[in-house]
This record gives sequence, C-alpha cells and structure tokens, in this order.
Amino acid sequence: MLKSHGYAAYDAATPLRPFGFERREPLAEDVHIEILYCGVCHSDLHQVRNEWGGSHFPLVPGHEIVGRVAGIGGAVTQFKPGDLVGVGCLVDSCRTCPECVDDQEQYCDQLVLTYNSHDRHSGGMTYGGYSNRVVVDQRFVLKISERLDPAAAAPLLCAGITTWSPLRHWRVGPSQKVGVVGLGGLGHMGVKFAHAFGAEVVLFTTSPGKSEDARRLGADAVVVSKNAEEMTRHSGSFDFILDTVAAAHDLDPYLTLLKRDGTLCLLGVPDHPHPAPNAANLIFKRRNLAGSLIGGLRETQEMLDFCAEHGIVSDIEQIPMQQINTAYQRMLKGDVKYRFVIDLASLQDDH
Amino acid sequence: MLKSHGYAAYDAATPLRPFGFERREPLAEDVHIEILYCGVCHSDLHQVRNEWGGSHFPLVPGHEIVGRVAGIGGAVTQFKPGDLVGVGCLVDSCRTCPECVDDQEQYCDQLVLTYNSHDRHSGGMTYGGYSNRVVVDQRFVLKISERLDPAAAAPLLCAGITTWSPLRHWRVGPSQKVGVVGLGGLGHMGVKFAHAFGAEVVLFTTSPGKSEDARRLGADAVVVSKNAEEMTRHSGSFDFILDTVAAAHDLDPYLTLLKRDGTLCLLGVPDHPHPAPNAANLIFKRRNLAGSLIGGLRETQEMLDFCAEHGIVSDIEQIPMQQINTAYQRMLKGDVKYRFVIDLASLQDDH
Repeated sequence: MLKSHGYAAYDAATPLRPFGFERREPLAEDVHIEILYCGVCHSDLHQVRNEWGGSHFPLVPGHEIVGRVAGIGGAVTQFKPGDLVGVGCLVDSCRTCPECVDDQEQYCDQLVLTYNSHDRHSGGMTYGGYSNRVVVDQRFVLKISERLDPAAAAPLLCAGITTWSPLRHWRVGPSQKVGVVGLGGLGHMGVKFAHAFGAEVVLFTTSPGKSEDARRLGADAVVVSKNAEEMTRHSGSFDFILDTVAAAHDLDPYLTLLKRDGTLCLLGVPDHPHPAPNAANLIFKRRNLAGSLIGGLRETQEMLDFCAEHGIVSDIEQIPMQQINTAYQRMLKGDVKYRFVIDLASLQDDH
Repeated sequence: MLKSHGYAAYDAATPLRPFGFERREPLAEDVHIEILYCGVCHSDLHQVRNEWGGSHFPLVPGHEIVGRVAGIGGAVTQFKPGDLVGVGCLVDSCRTCPECVDDQEQYCDQLVLTYNSHDRHSGGMTYGGYSNRVVVDQRFVLKISERLDPAAAAPLLCAGITTWSPLRHWRVGPSQKVGVVGLGGLGHMGVKFAHAFGAEVVLFTTSPGKSEDARRLGADAVVVSKNAEEMTRHSGSFDFILDTVAAAHDLDPYLTLLKRDGTLCLLGVPDHPHPAPNAANLIFKRRNLAGSLIGGLRETQEMLDFCAEHGIVSDIEQIPMQQINTAYQRMLKGDVKYRFVIDLASLQDDH
C-alpha cells in the first residue's frame, strides 16, 4: 500500500485536519500521481458537512486534481512519469453500460467518485485530492497541456467540464443568445466557454457589483435578476440558459426568457426543491427544463485541449492546505473570485 | 354578414343553449364551410366555465371541425366547393414571426384561436364549431381525405395534432420505448400514433379496467401508475413519455422512468401547479421536462394525410347538439370512449 497524507473531515461538525492513510499499490492499469494542486468545489463542503447524507468519515475531499505522473503500472500506455495530468470527479465506472459505451461515464449507475465512494480494487473508500498523491486507472486520467497554468487548470476538472458539457450537448454557438445564472465557480467558467463558442452571453446575478467582472470574463450584458423590468426586456429571447445556482429559486422568470424550443439547464441540486415551475411556461413555447451532471472522460479531454488552445483557465485564489477551513467560511459568503485552489506543496509545512 | 346559429354558453354557470349570430362575409382568401361534425374537447368545458379566465360570453366552443366547402373567396386557390375540410384550434396568426415562418403558428404571439379570440377582420369575437358554418382563411383550412370517416376524423384536429406534434418533434420511432400517461381523448390518439410510428408503447393509467382497451388501441403494455412496484420495474427505460393528464400530479415517478436524455412532455396545464419535480431527477440522467402545444398547419396536414394512408381516426361517440350538456357531465367523469363528436345536422331539430 502507498502511505499517503492529506486533510480530512473526521466528522460532519469539526474543521478539517491532517490525516494519514493508505492508497492502493498501483495496478497494471494504474497511474500514480503526485498531486500539485486541487480546486475547492462547493460539493466538497456539502459532503464534509454530510448535507447530502452518505458521508463516510474520515473523508478526504477534492476532485479538481492536477499533478505529475510519479509512476505507472505495467499496462499503462497513455502516460509516462513526469506527465502533467488531471483527475476530475470520476475514477471508475462499469465500462459496459450504454452511458459508458457512449463516453458519458458520469451517468453510469456504478460510477466510482474520486472521494467518498467504494474503491472496487482496495475494498476501502476513495480519498480525494486534498492529499499528496492519488492512484487512478489510466482511463480516468486526463492529459493537461504544459501551456496551461497547472493551478488555474485544476478547476477545469469539475467547474469547467460541468459547464462545458451542457453547452456542447445543447450545441451553443454563434448567433445564439445564451444566459448564465450566477457568477461563482461554475458560472464564471460558463461565461468564458459560452463566449469562446461565439454566443451572445448574458449573465444573471443578484449582485449588481459583479457587472464589471462579468464583462471582463466575456459577458456581453449583465442583468440583475431581482429587477423584474430588466428581466422582462429579455423575455422570449434566449436559446439556452445555464443555471448554476444550487439554492432553491423560482425557475419561471428564466423559463419565460427562453425562445420557443429553448432549454433551461440546471446544474445544482438544491437542499429544498425549487418552487414548482408553471407548466404553461413549458407548453406555450415548447420549452425544456433539463439538468446536466459533470461530463464524460472524452469530452473532458476535449475541453482541456480546447482550453490549452484558447488559453482558458479558471480565475483562482491559491491557498495553502492549512487555510481550507477559512476558505470554506469565505466560500459560504461568496467571497472568492472564483475558485480556491489548494497548493499541495504546503502539506510539507505540517511536518 | 352570414347569419349563423349554434349552441353557446351565455355565462359561466348555465347550460349551453341555442344562439343566433353573424359571421363575417367571406373575404378574398376565405373559405366558407358548412360544418358536419365537431369534436368536444376538455378545453371547451374549461372555457365555457371560465376556468382559465378571459372567457367572453356568449361563447360558442368547438375547435375540432369537419365540414364541406360551401363557397370560396376570389383568391382561394387551394379549395373548391364540395371539398371535405377541417379546421382546428387556429384560424389566424401574424404570419411573419419566427414561429409562423417555421410553420409553428401555434406558438405565434398573435395567434387567433377558433373561438373566444378577437377576429381581426370582423372586429368581433371568433365563434367555434358548435354551429352550422364557419368562415376561415384558406391558410388555416386543412384537406381531409374522403377515405376517412368525417365524424371520427374531427378529433384529429386537436386531440390528434396535440399528440402527433410532440411525437414527431422528439422523433419517436422504431426501437424506442414510449410512454403515454392517461387514456382519454389525447391519450388514446397518443397510443395510436406512437404505435403507428413503430415504438414500443406503454400506457400509464390509474384505472386497471382500461388495460384491454389500451392494448386494442396499440399499447404493448399497461402499467397501473399507482402500483409503485410496477412503476419501478420500468425505471430508467423510456426514451420519451407523453403526459396527457392535466390534473396536478407528481412528475418524479415519470421522470425516473426515463433513460439518460429522455424527455417527459406535458400537454395539459393544471389548475394548480404539479408538485415541484426533484432537480436531481433531471440532473443525474440529463433528463428533460418539456411541454408542447397543439401543432402547426403544415404538420396538421401531414398528420391528416398519414391518417388517411394508415386508416387512423379517433374512437368516438356521436351525439346530437342537444346532448352537449349531458356530454360535459359524462366527460367530467371520464365516461367517454374516447371523444364525443357533435353531429351538426342535429341543429335542424331546434327549428
């Protein structure tokens, strides 16, 4: 077994603190990665606090991992030691169901998540990227271009692909008007990608203060969603709206902004359900209310290659591992532009 | 003006009774139709009772009209006296908006409905098919094959196209598993069409007694939706589900029956909203909740031609005009297989 260390939640109520544990010895298809950076996703906090239920403690969060290959199993053909690589939310799946066959592993019923899942090989739990190393099957490892800032590339593995996948699936592109609801970790990537795909991008926010930043990130216009008059001005004009807000909120104001055949796509699962949408808003313009989850491995690689080509990364604030609990507090207040990324070199300071 | 007579609601509370009124003198583009049959749609009853608001009395319902051309305006090229024709829910639209240009006039913001709408030519209200004649612009008149039973073809103009349009839009066909929720006027047409398109059809009903009839109409299987175990057996297996039930009901049991990328399409606007669906059921399999309204003129003609070719009509119970109030009572109890159709020849008995 590989001796590893990182930061874990020991229960749902106390701050994260150092944790020593073991990872499986690399198998033939495995890549052993020394972790350089790991992004801090809001779902880390949900699971640390067991807000979704099902958290197994000690729990090492983190699924926006960038690192370098330290070693490979005998059957690994795609990677060699020294390669810059990434690991996202998934580390295994059944590989035979229709979702796996269609490169949509994120929808596989036997998905193994990067942390807080049962590891089929070790028999134990999976542990995430708030740690010094990780061992992952080569099929779930992504290549990351040396042209990208490795710290700022880390959030692409979750926030990036979670917005990229639906924008690609619903074919967002030039001559389309696209909305992004919320300017956080997901939203700021949604704005960057929709802009890069050539769409007219409108950001919806409850915070007028985010307007300038949104434009810098690629938004053509910013609408304060609490302003009913501003909202009405855009009525029936959107092809697609990406809703990155997980807190329960009224969906009808966004549904009515869609054109005929437009889609409002939800990315976040709220703690309490969104208020029931009005069926008439779906029926009278044949609109769609949809949802989307992360993305598959193939499209994640496509996204990373596109990002390298177009110089797209996340806007980040780098922190040492020891500041994670403070970072969670700030994240809850929306006080981060737009993603915390942990520099795992800081783990050495604990020794 | 053309002296006309039919049956009208004089207010929201009293039974329909005879009503004399005037229709516009046919304009150059108009077709003057002597009405033979008119189907009885549940929305007739909603508007007679002003349950949606906005009903103007006296109100002559009826938008499933079949009749013969009695006369044509000077610019009419598509029809000649004696032709068997139909009129559905729409009698005019703006003709220039993107919906009209795309042959999706039902989504035009300036849609003129067959009854209880403002007639742009006469300045008065439009009156529906519970009457002896109607005057309609040729662009909103459909050709009906002499091969079809004209009484049983009448419900194709609303119940037919309302189910045909979404089944076509979402490309239902062979090797797909399709659900139809509810076996009423819409549902029984949904079953017939989905079967004719080669799909595996499952009918969902709360009435176990409808099983045999559903199979006769083309269903491959019938699921009693109150039976949770039966429902679970079909979990994640449907490509498309057409929900014809307007009464508020829980959508999650149907959403979870869909495969990845499947669509649950609502056709009815409930009086009270459906309970809020669980966003997770959309997100975790990228499912869609959508709605659809009637259909455009071009696709309505395509449907009528398909029906003539495949011998598809509605299952109906023919009634004289004088029995309309009793028919409404029975309709409320679901006591009709599956559509009442008024024989307008019966209007002569009032004289």
